[in-house]
Amino acid sequence: MAQPSVLTPQADDFPRWYQDVVQKAEMADNGPVRGTMVIRPYGYAIWERIQREMDDRIKAAGAQNAYFPLFIPESYLHREAEHVEGFSPELAVVTHAGGSELAEPVVVRPTSETVIGEFMAKWIHSHRDLPLLLNQWANVVRWELRPRLFLRSSEFLWQEGHTAHASAEDASRYATLIHLEVYNDFLEQVLALPSIVGIKPPSERFAGAVNTMTCEGMMRDGKALQLATSHELGQNFARAFNIVFQGDDGESQFCHTTSWGASTRLVGGLIMAHGDDEGLRVPPRLAPWQVVVIPVRDDEAVVHGAREIARELLESGVRSHLDAGRGSYGRRVTDWEIKGIPLRVEVGPRDLAAGQVTLVRRDNGEKLSVARAELVSVVRTLLDEMHDAFFAGALAFRESRTTTVTSVEAALEAAQSGFARLDWDLLDESAEARLKAEAITVRCLIRQDGTLPSSETEPDLVAIVAKSY
Amino acid sequence: MAQPSVLTPQADDFPRWYQDVVQKAEMADNGPVRGTMVIRPYGYAIWERIQREMDDRIKAAGAQNAYFPLFIPESYLHREAEHVEGFSPELAVVTHAGGSELAEPVVVRPTSETVIGEFMAKWIHSHRDLPLLLNQWANVVRWELRPRLFLRSSEFLWQEGHTAHASAEDASRYATLIHLEVYNDFLEQVLALPSIVGIKPPSERFAGAVNTMTCEGMMRDGKALQLATSHELGQNFARAFNIVFQGDDGESQFCHTTSWGASTRLVGGLIMAHGDDEGLRVPPRLAPWQVVVIPVRDDEAVVHGAREIARELLESGVRSHLDAGRGSYGRRVTDWEIKGIPLRVEVGPRDLAAGQVTLVRRDNGEKLSVARAELVSVVRTLLDEMHDAFFAGALAFRESRTTTVTSVEAALEAAQSGFARLDWDLLDESAEARLKAEAITVRCLIRQDGTLPSSETEPDLVAIVAKSY
Repeated sequence: MAQPSVLTPQADDFPRWYQDVVQKAEMADNGPVRGTMVIRPYGYAIWERIQREMDDRIKAAGAQNAYFPLFIPESYLHREAEHVEGFSPELAVVTHAGGSELAEPVVVRPTSETVIGEFMAKWIHSHRDLPLLLNQWANVVRWELRPRLFLRSSEFLWQEGHTAHASAEDASRYATLIHLEVYNDFLEQVLALPSIVGIKPPSERFAGAVNTMTCEGMMRDGKALQLATSHELGQNFARAFNIVFQGDDGESQFCHTTSWGASTRLVGGLIMAHGDDEGLRVPPRLAPWQVVVIPVRDDEAVVHGAREIARELLESGVRSHLDAGRGSYGRRVTDWEIKGIPLRVEVGPRDLAAGQVTLVRRDNGEKLSVARAELVSVVRTLLDEMHDAFFAGALAFRESRTTTVTSVEAALEAAQSGFARLDWDLLDESAEARLKAEAITVRCLIRQDGTLPSSETEPDLVAIVAKSY
Repeated sequence: MAQPSVLTPQADDFPRWYQDVVQKAEMADNGPVRGTMVIRPYGYAIWERIQREMDDRIKAAGAQNAYFPLFIPESYLHREAEHVEGFSPELAVVTHAGGSELAEPVVVRPTSETVIGEFMAKWIHSHRDLPLLLNQWANVVRWELRPRLFLRSSEFLWQEGHTAHASAEDASRYATLIHLEVYNDFLEQVLALPSIVGIKPPSERFAGAVNTMTCEGMMRDGKALQLATSHELGQNFARAFNIVFQGDDGESQFCHTTSWGASTRLVGGLIMAHGDDEGLRVPPRLAPWQVVVIPVRDDEAVVHGAREIARELLESGVRSHLDAGRGSYGRRVTDWEIKGIPLRVEVGPRDLAAGQVTLVRRDNGEKLSVARAELVSVVRTLLDEMHDAFFAGALAFRESRTTTVTSVEAALEAAQSGFARLDWDLLDESAEARLKAEAITVRCLIRQDGTLPSSETEPDLVAIVAKSY
C-alpha cells in the first residue's frame, strides 16, 4: 500500500538520505543561529524515551540528579590545563548581561566538570561523604563549524554524570558499572544496537582523563558513531579543584573522579543504524508509539472499531496511537512508515465484519491477518520478536562489514566501507598519523575476546579502526 | 526526640528563615556566577516530581513537548515592540563564539516566544494544522540584580507552553484549560496549595499579552507569590512573526497565540507556603520520599526489620526510603524533619518484639504506635489525610490573613500582613501608583464569587492587593 519512497536512497547518497529522514520524519530543523537545532515533537518524544530509560538505569546505579549553572566563570576552565586546551576553540562567551559589560566574561558550559568540581570540593569532607554520585540532564554548547542535526550541533542535550571516590579502584569500578549497566544495557536492550565496548587510545581520550571507555556503533554506511563515553579522571580534577577528603587515618587525600555522558547524538545513531530507504525504523522498546492504528476509511463504525483496538492495546501496556480523520489513508501510511513506528494495524469494514485486522511490520514489511480476539497477545509477542530482530540485523550487518587485517595498509582499505580489526601493537604514532590523514581513527581498543581492557598497555589488544561521525 | 531547631524562627526573620531552610535542607546553593543557582539532589528530586506531575497534565491537555534553541538572534526580540522593551534590561548576550567575534550577537533566551513564533510560521499552513500545541522544558536566563534562590535567579528552569489557534475564542479556551486543569489542578492536588486564580490588571500583564491569567499563593509571611501564568497573546506575535493560516474560505489569516509557564520558583513557593520553624514540610503527593524508615539502633536485626518495612511500603506504591548506618539516630531524625518528609517510621528492637512500629507525622508532630501488620494500610490512609490537612491548613492561614476593605488606605494597611480584597473600581492609575510606592501591587482580579473573569472590563470585579515576591 505504501507509496514510492520520498527519500534519497541510502546507496545513492547516505548524508542526503539522513537529511531527508530528519526532515520528512519531522525529527528536527536547523535553528536560526548557525549550528543550533530545533527538536520537533516526534524527535523529542524519542529523546524523552531515551531519557526515561537511561535515567531509570542511572538511578538504579545509585547516582542522584542535580542541576548546575549554565554559566561558568572563564577562570574555572583554566584550572585544568588539558581541559581548557580541549575546549577553548568551541566556547561561547557572554560578555554583556543586565544591560552592561561583565567584569569577568562567563562561558556557556561546554560540559560541567569544572563547576561540579568546585561544588564537590565544598560538599565533601570525610570518607563518609564518598562516593558522591551525581548526574545532570542539561543543554551544553560547543560551537560547531560543520553542524549536522543530532550529530554535531552547537547546542545539544545530554546527561553528564560526575562522581568522586576514595580510591582509583572504586572510581574505575563505578565508571565501568555505568558504562556496562547504564550505557551498554540501554543500547542493547532498548536501542537494539550492538556496540563495541572498548577504551580509547591515548590520542582520542577526553581532555583531562586517564582512561576513556566508549560504546562504538556501526551505521548503515559502515562508519562508526561514538554513542556514549565514560571517563576516569584520576586525581587531575581533584587537584585542580581541591576535592579532598579526610581518610580513616585522618590524612587529607585527593579524591578520584569520573565523568560519563550520552547525548541527543543517540537520536542520530538510531536513524543511521536502523533506518532504511523508506525512512526511520524505531525499535519497539524505544518507540514513543509502538503501534499505530489506522482506519482504512473514516466512516464512523470503522473509526469506532479502530479506537477500541487502540484503547485495548493501551490498557495492556502497549503504547498505541489512533490516527483517524487526518489526510488520506495512503498519506497516513507513508507518514508512519517514514517515522518508523514498529507496527501498523489497518482496520477496514471487511476486516471488522470478519473479526480480524491486518498487522504490518515496519522492520520487514511483512503483513499478517490476525483474529481480532488474539490481537493484543500477537502484538505483544511480535514486539518482543522485533526487538531481537532489530538487534540481530544490526549485528549481522556489522559483522558483514568488519574485516580482520594484519597491516596498516589493509586497515586503510577495509575502513573505506566498515570496521577493521588490527593488532594494537602495529599502530605506533606514525601509523596513527597515516590513518588520520585519511580521516580514519582508532575508535577503540578491545581484548581478543571482545571484552573491555583496563588499560591500553595490556598485551595483545585489538584496535577497531574506522571512519566516524 | 527531635533536637532543638537549627533554623532562625519564621517570626524573627522570615527571609533569613528561608535562606536557612534552603541551606540546611540541602535544597540549593548559590552558583559561582552572580544570580545563578546550583540545585542540589534533594531540591532537584522535588523539581523532578513537579515536572512529572505537570508534564502528565500538559500531555493530557494535548500539548506535545519539543525543544527550541538556547540562542536567539538579537533581531528576533525587536520584532514585537513591547516584548523587547519588557526583556532588554535582563538579557545576557553572547558576543564571541568559536574563537571569534560573532557578526550578529545572540541573546540567551529569556523566554522562547520569538523563536517558537518563527517556527510556527514555517509549520502552519492551513486550518488543518491548528491548533498547534507545543510545550518545552528548558533553562532560561533573565539577569537578576537581587537574586534569591528559587525565587529570583539569573538562570531558572521552567516549562513554557506555546500554542497557535484559528480563533481568539479557541486560544482563550485553551489557555484557560491549561490554567485550570494543569496549573491549578497541580497546585491543589499535588502541592496542596490553594491559590487565587485571577487575571492580571493591564499594568501587570506579560509584555505583548492581551490577557494574563495567574495563580497567586499566600506565603507564611502573608506575601503573595505568583505560581504560574497563562497568557493570551492575541495576534501580536502572529503579526510580528507572520504566523498565518489559510482558512476554510481560502483567505489568509493571522493565528491567535498563547503562552504559559511555571518554573523552579514553585520550589520556593513550596518552602514558604508549607514550611515551619523545624524546616520544610513537603505535602505527601509531591514528596520524592513519602516515608523514611529509620532504625533506632544500627544492629543487624533492627536494620533488617526496617529494610523489610521500607521494601513492603515501596511494593505497595509508597515512595519509601531506608536511612540506616549513617550518623547518629538523633541527627538523622533532625535531617529528615528539616527536609520535611511527610512520615517517619521509627523501628526499635522493643517495637519489633512487640509487633509494632512508631509513626511520626511531620505536619503536626503527632506520634502513633501502629501494629506492624497494619502499617501499610495506615500509611496509605494517613498520606491521603495529610494531603487534605496541608491544603486545609494553608487555606485557613490565607483566610486569616485576608481582609476585605473599602478604601485604598485600608488596602495599604491590610497588605502589610496579608491580602486585601478591594473593589477594582476603586483602583485608578493614581491609586495603583500609591500602592506601588509601598511595594504593594494588584496581584490579580477575580469575580465576586472567586471565579476567573474573562476581562478586566467586567463589572464588579475584586482586586487582590498584596506585597509579593
